[in-house]
Amino acid sequence: MNLILLFEEDFDSSGQRVSLSGRRLEHISGIHKAKPGDELTVGLLNGKIGTGRINTIDESSLTMSVDLHIEAPQPLPLTLILAMPRPKMLKRILQSVTAMGVKQIYLINAFKVEKSFWESPALEAEALRQQMILGLEQAKDTILPEIHIRKLFKPFVEDELPQIAKETLALVAHPISSESCPRGLEKTVTLAVGPEGGFIPYEVQKLEEAGFSAVHIGERILRVETAVPALIARLY
Amino acid sequence: MNLILLFEEDFDSSGQRVSLSGRRLEHISGIHKAKPGDELTVGLLNGKIGTGRINTIDESSLTMSVDLHIEAPQPLPLTLILAMPRPKMLKRILQSVTAMGVKQIYLINAFKVEKSFWESPALEAEALRQQMILGLEQAKDTILPEIHIRKLFKPFVEDELPQIAKETLALVAHPISSESCPRGLEKTVTLAVGPEGGFIPYEVQKLEEAGFSAVHIGERILRVETAVPALIARLY
Repeated sequence: MNLILLFEEDFDSSGQRVSLSGRRLEHISGIHKAKPGDELTVGLLNGKIGTGRINTIDESSLTMSVDLHIEAPQPLPLTLILAMPRPKMLKRILQSVTAMGVKQIYLINAFKVEKSFWESPALEAEALRQQMILGLEQAKDTILPEIHIRKLFKPFVEDELPQIAKETLALVAHPISSESCPRGLEKTVTLAVGPEGGFIPYEVQKLEEAGFSAVHIGERILRVETAVPALIARLY
Repeated sequence: MNLILLFEEDFDSSGQRVSLSGRRLEHISGIHKAKPGDELTVGLLNGKIGTGRINTIDESSLTMSVDLHIEAPQPLPLTLILAMPRPKMLKRILQSVTAMGVKQIYLINAFKVEKSFWESPALEAEALRQQMILGLEQAKDTILPEIHIRKLFKPFVEDELPQIAKETLALVAHPISSESCPRGLEKTVTLAVGPEGGFIPYEVQKLEEAGFSAVHIGERILRVETAVPALIARLY
């Protein structure tokens, strides 16, 4: 928690003082070992970043005076199209891509996605939000990504994806591609990443018809949770 | 398990037939749903890669005829100096860096490493080896990385590290550095990555005295398990 994320409902009517309890209080007293007068980095969800000066702190709550004046860091100009991963892995991937600055995430179906994954409580709105909040707190960001769930591959790729990928560099990570993934870009990318075991040839073909080019990042097959940060770090 | 890793003791006296049971048998029958006559990608630990043709398979064991003739993929020319992470994270990092082709890993102490981490059973030789084997099976590699444990920061950095880093590009990941991490290198790198919370200024200074340059990969602070694959993907 490199930034304490604040929500509208934490503020009193002055708009400058907040009271916190629960997880954030535990972190501030347990990890930061903060005392009255200490200043912490804080940010308002979907708003600005600044400092919070602790007025009072005890076991059950703390109050801070907050001054927010810095813009959130620039988002990454990348839309991630991700075949629904195993739920435990989804949590970690959401944290890591949120920390890296991705703001648009589509979770899609694919042939090798296990059907049971779609029944996971990890897909409930509050569970998704919790993972993204952890990513924002880690990276000192405040802008919550948007997650879009698309359980039907073909209508998504045929009807919706061409519009999403329009005027972007559209890439699908595919270990057996002969094209190497580009590096250090300064343009907008739509990046599709398949499930463990990869997209099947039909799916790669449908993505290519939607304007995507297949690229690889070496002969080694990486797990999705490793491949996604590796691809993003290589692109930007 | 994109490659079934074999060990000397799996082979019969002909050196061409193996019998497997346990975890690998479960994977081959449960995931690959393999039958007699099927061919699988196999590799001998620290040896060559090839195919295994299933002769017999039942619930308790399988036998394969093995032909090994392909060299393991090239290792990554990178030595990783990693401040000992939280044990759960260590496991995932070992899997991911092994999959990415790192062959030399030093786990070192640092001021912000919690002392309890060094007592973890995750550091036992067999536990380390299990994680690396998972990484090799994932990436279709056979060459086991070497892990070196160094519980004293100062003697390691002063007496041993200059020799390790000699004639390599020596970099320490440090989010507040003004230098951006280089991209797409074709040279040997020694990469030092700190604990959650980073190396303290004294540690960065000691690393700089040992020939390291501090570099960043953006203003966002990433968790170590995200930062390490991101740094490696950026460097190569």
